[in-house]
This record gives sequence, C-alpha cells and structure tokens, in this order.
Amino acid sequence: MAPALPAEPHPTGPPAEGTIRIRRAAASDWAQIWRLMEPIVRAGDTYCWDQDLDDDGARRLWFEPPPARVYVAEAEGRIRGTALLHPNRGGGGSHVATASFMTDPAASGRGIARKLAQHVLAEAAAQGYLAMQFNAVVETNVRAVALWQSLGFRILATVPRAFRHPSAGLTGLHIMHMDLTEHGA
Amino acid sequence: MAPALPAEPHPTGPPAEGTIRIRRAAASDWAQIWRLMEPIVRAGDTYCWDQDLDDDGARRLWFEPPPARVYVAEAEGRIRGTALLHPNRGGGGSHVATASFMTDPAASGRGIARKLAQHVLAEAAAQGYLAMQFNAVVETNVRAVALWQSLGFRILATVPRAFRHPSAGLTGLHIMHMDLTEHGA
Repeated sequence: MAPALPAEPHPTGPPAEGTIRIRRAAASDWAQIWRLMEPIVRAGDTYCWDQDLDDDGARRLWFEPPPARVYVAEAEGRIRGTALLHPNRGGGGSHVATASFMTDPAASGRGIARKLAQHVLAEAAAQGYLAMQFNAVVETNVRAVALWQSLGFRILATVPRAFRHPSAGLTGLHIMHMDLTEHGA
Repeated sequence: MAPALPAEPHPTGPPAEGTIRIRRAAASDWAQIWRLMEPIVRAGDTYCWDQDLDDDGARRLWFEPPPARVYVAEAEGRIRGTALLHPNRGGGGSHVATASFMTDPAASGRGIARKLAQHVLAEAAAQGYLAMQFNAVVETNVRAVALWQSLGFRILATVPRAFRHPSAGLTGLHIMHMDLTEHGA
C-alpha cells in the first residue's frame, strides 16, 4: 500500500546510504512504530484504515502472526520506516505477497522508502513469493505510485471512486503488481 | 468471489422461483451452511482459502461481525446457498462492498446463485454501498464469471498467475466491479 513519502528532498542532499539500517521488527519496537504510524492513520489519506484506529488496533493489524513479517528502517538509532510483508490471499493464492509501507515524513529525502521497499521485495522473493500485489494504492498518492513504478510495479487497474479522500473526495485505488520471478528483486 | 455454480441445468427445467427463499442467516444455520461449504473448501478450486480449513475456522471467516451480513437461500426448507456481504476495505474504502457466494452443486439449474446475487446486490445498494468489488474470481470458474458479467460486473483486471488451481496450475484471478449507483440493483 501507500507509504507516506518524503514531501521534499533533503536540502543538503541525502546522507550516505550506510546510515539506514533495515532489520526485522521486534515486539519492543512497537512504541516507535506507532509514533510514526499514528499521524499517517489520523490523516486518513493513504490507508484504508479507520482514522480513529488506536494503538492496540494498529498493533494487531501490523504485527500479524507468521508467515507475516514486519521490518523497520532505522537511522541514527530511530525507526524511520516500517513495512509489513505477508501473503495477499490464503490457500491457492498464498504465493502472491502483499506489503504495506509507512515512512516518517520528518525523515524526508533520504531514500528510506525506496531502500525499505527494495529490501522487502528481495525478502519476498527469497521467501518464495512469485509476485507482489498492492490492492489499494490511493491514486492521489502520486509519489508512492511513482516509487512503485520505478521499482518495477505496474498498475493493473484503477478501481474508480473506491477511496474517499479527506480533501479530494472520491478517488481511485490502484491495483499494482510486480512479478518477482521475471524482475528479480 | 466465486460461487460453486450448478454444473448442469435441471433436466426437467427449473421449478417456480417462488420455491427459493432468501433471508438473513441465523447462528443456528451454521451446520447447514458448513455442509454445503465444506466440499467447496476441500476442492480448493474457487476460493483462496486453505483447503484444510475446519468448521470453526470457516465459521469465523463467514460469520464476521457487523457491518458484515450473511444471507442464505432456502429451497424446500434446506439451505442451498449462502452469501457474505461486507465492506471491501476499512476507513476511506468502506463505501465499496465485496461479497462471497457459495451454492450447493446438488441444487443445480434452479437459478439459486443468480437469485442470491441479485438479492445481495439490492441489499448492498440499500445499505448505501456505492459499488461492489470482487477481488479474486478464479479465471477458470467461467460460469461464475459469466454470471457476474450478466448481472453487470465488468473485469477490471486479471492478476496473472495469482491462483494455484489444483488441476489447472497457475491461473489468473479476475478483479470484478459493479457500480451500484449507475446500475441500480
């Protein structure tokens, strides 16, 4: 789904990539994850979640049981981004992954969303998923859409008027797809 | 999603429509619902559910809390079909419905799936949903696809190789959509 992407590039240019570390999340990371997640949930313009979702509800949504995996991106010891990777469907559909991403707008222009997404795509391929599908990328979230496209995703369809944007009104939800066997990751 | 549709028309032609009754499901209907559902789950060729899903797991999936609603189609006092109607997404996406349908192949050719679907579409419109979306209609389930198209759904996209069919192998999942405000129901 749609990450909260940096609004503007960092004025002095991005720091070295080495300062960003991606790892699996631990239960003890939740307080920091929720701190970056809460404003994104409250804004209600990128995720199909209730805007009044609370800490516990969000934790249940994000910390799903296996085979789901949660990742975090850290810079200077602070969590600046997080991702949830899991099967998009059960049974005969479980070989297609989906993922959700959130990054801290305060850590703009450092390529955190891209680095996290690349990591998660590589993990998905390594875990045997054959493809990744995003079910609901808000059409107005053009920076997210551009990021996904730059990574190899294509828009399969746009579900018309499927998202009620707080300011833009009824807008589309893109269904995006990337074959992990053709593109690698 | 995909109903298990009648394999062949009834040899003596369908009985009068009056013999089919659609109503909200009660908790006490579960045993009959599971009886028609279990062979569909075990077959694993129309639903993205684990084929070894048990009675309790299926009940949790089907008897969702409100605003979800479950319907049954009865003929001669027996439950021959069931449907689950609920929002396709939360938050800003909750005005689009989705639904899942299962009908008893032993009650072939009586128009039960169609009648149940028409009822559920009318209910969805009456409940204020603006559209209905199916996320995963198995491409090989051509009778289901034809039924949805005859009711006004269109295929927005087909996610390639998104379903591992027990005999056909990797096949597509159609994403289907119907606007309930233009078409009525």
